[in-house]
Formats: sequence, C-alpha cells, structure tokens
Amino acid sequence: MKQRIAIDMDDVMADTYGKFAQLYLQGETPRYTIEELREKSFHELLDETEFKTLFKNVYKPGFFSDIAVMEGAQDTIARLMEQYEVFVATAAMEFPNSLREKYDWLAKHFPNIHWRNIIFLGDKSILGADYLIDDLPRNLKTFAGKGLLFSAPHNRDETAYTRVNNWTEVAGQLL
Amino acid sequence: MKQRIAIDMDDVMADTYGKFAQLYLQGETPRYTIEELREKSFHELLDETEFKTLFKNVYKPGFFSDIAVMEGAQDTIARLMEQYEVFVATAAMEFPNSLREKYDWLAKHFPNIHWRNIIFLGDKSILGADYLIDDLPRNLKTFAGKGLLFSAPHNRDETAYTRVNNWTEVAGQLL
Repeated sequence: MKQRIAIDMDDVMADTYGKFAQLYLQGETPRYTIEELREKSFHELLDETEFKTLFKNVYKPGFFSDIAVMEGAQDTIARLMEQYEVFVATAAMEFPNSLREKYDWLAKHFPNIHWRNIIFLGDKSILGADYLIDDLPRNLKTFAGKGLLFSAPHNRDETAYTRVNNWTEVAGQLL
Repeated sequence: MKQRIAIDMDDVMADTYGKFAQLYLQGETPRYTIEELREKSFHELLDETEFKTLFKNVYKPGFFSDIAVMEGAQDTIARLMEQYEVFVATAAMEFPNSLREKYDWLAKHFPNIHWRNIIFLGDKSILGADYLIDDLPRNLKTFAGKGLLFSAPHNRDETAYTRVNNWTEVAGQLL
C-alpha cells in the first residue's frame, strides 16, 4: 500500500499570505512594503485594529476563489501522486463561506486530485496519514505521523519540526 | 485521552432515505407504499430509469437542507459527547452543493457539535478514530477502528459488522 501524504491548502498549496499582503497594500494607509510583509508576520507588523481589519476579509464571499497557487506546488504534487496517495486536508470549517470556494479552487488548479482525496476539517489530529505538510505548528504537534513545516512568516522561529522552505524542498524530502 | 467516535451523517444522523422515499411518493407514478420502501432498498425496488430520476435529486440545491433528524440521534449523541470525543464524518465531497447545506444542517440540529469536530471527506479510511458508525459496509471495510453498521434497507443482508438498528442500540453498544 502506498504511503499517505496529507497536504494543507492555505500557505502551502495556496499563497493565502500573498492574498492578505495584496489586500493590505491596497488598503488606505499601508505602512510596509511587500518585502517587509514577506519577512515578518502580520501579527508582528500590524497593530490590533489593522490586523482585525485585514483578517475580516476571509469572511467576504470570494476571498478564497482567486488566491494564487504556491510556486512549484502543481508540479511537485503531480510527482508525489506517482509514489504516494495524496490527500488535501484543509481547515475549511472555520469559514463556511470557504467550503465551496476551496472545492472549486482545487478543481480548477489541481484537477488531477480526485474529490475522494479532499478533506475539509477542523482538527487535523484525526488524520491517519504518514506525512502532513502544514504551515501551522499546532497541526503538526497533534499529528501522529511525520510532520513537515512549510515555511511562512508566522512560523519562522519554530524549530521543532523538519522545515521545508518551498515545493522544491518538499520534493527533496519526499521524492 | 477520550476515545474518538466518527459518525456518518446520511442515513445515520439524518434520515436521507426518508427524504428519498418522500420524493418518490410525490412522484408521478409511485408503485410502492412507504412501508414497502422502508423494507427493501431502492436498488431492489426501482428500475434503472426510476432510480436515476429519484437519485438526481441530490444535485438539486436544498436537497440536504430539510432532511429530518434520525430518531434518537440528538439525545444519544449528546450523551456520547460526555464520554467520547465525537466527530461527524460525512462524504460531502461527491456533492459539492451539499457542503454548505450539510454545514448549516449540523449547526441547526446539532449546535453542540463544534466545527472543529466536523469532517467533510470522500474516503473514510483516513480517519484515525476508535469507532465509526456508518450505514455503508464499504466505509467500515477500510476503517482501522471498530465499525458499527447502522441499519438501512440497502445494508440489511450484510453480516460482517456489528449491527445497530437505531440510536437506542448505539447507546447500548457505547454507553
């Protein structure tokens, strides 16, 4: 039986952070450049009001529809699918408006991933997979298999997990 | 740590079969009574055209919104939640229109189940839980924990799993 890999969507397959950065820069009074935004997390850079204003965007219809695909994700995932059983595991339940948008986004950008291999959930500790690629240490912490931490500004100080900085490094670890 | 129970929605928490029966009886030329429909499966009773016509309803917006709650499900699940960690695991991915409808149905009828404990998926073999309550033998077959087969007309000849005929019997098995 093939080993199973579960892959997170936001900030792993999809450049959700980039979408937030774009919305921030389009806002009324941006105080940072895109380079600064890519270096530190919004939690570090923004004050509470700015953060809340920015984050509210996730509840707007369409927020999840036009997020860019993370560089290299399509190619590496297609190659992973030759050797592994690949599942997408995304915490869509927190934002019910995202359910259909995430489903359609996957159908558009990853049409080779069957609906049987898509999982919308809240708590990833229930996944019985061999690997989990995720940007959130809290998801890796409760995962029973091996976790790979996909680099993002909000996890750059985390040292407890094997880090992958991009999809080329994912390929290096798993292929 | 509490043991984990994953519970299927259609024909376990929700009387989806009853919704189909109702639609069939409202059709142009029903050939069976509700009693006959509860005894045998649609596959046995209907010819191919009748079956396809009836089944097409799942793709209509709203199909999943007004399904009745299975008798005893609310009470027994509330009691299970005192002893177990309860997850809802439903194969919503096959019918993308069902995603939001199922989410809203759960929020309406089972408001005590947190969104973190709701899972929309296709292949239940990825669930790392201790129990799975499901009406489909194919889901129990690949499940790593203990399966309980919730009785439905389409599984009445199945003998490979512990059978529960209703929510009182689920309580008898697990409480």
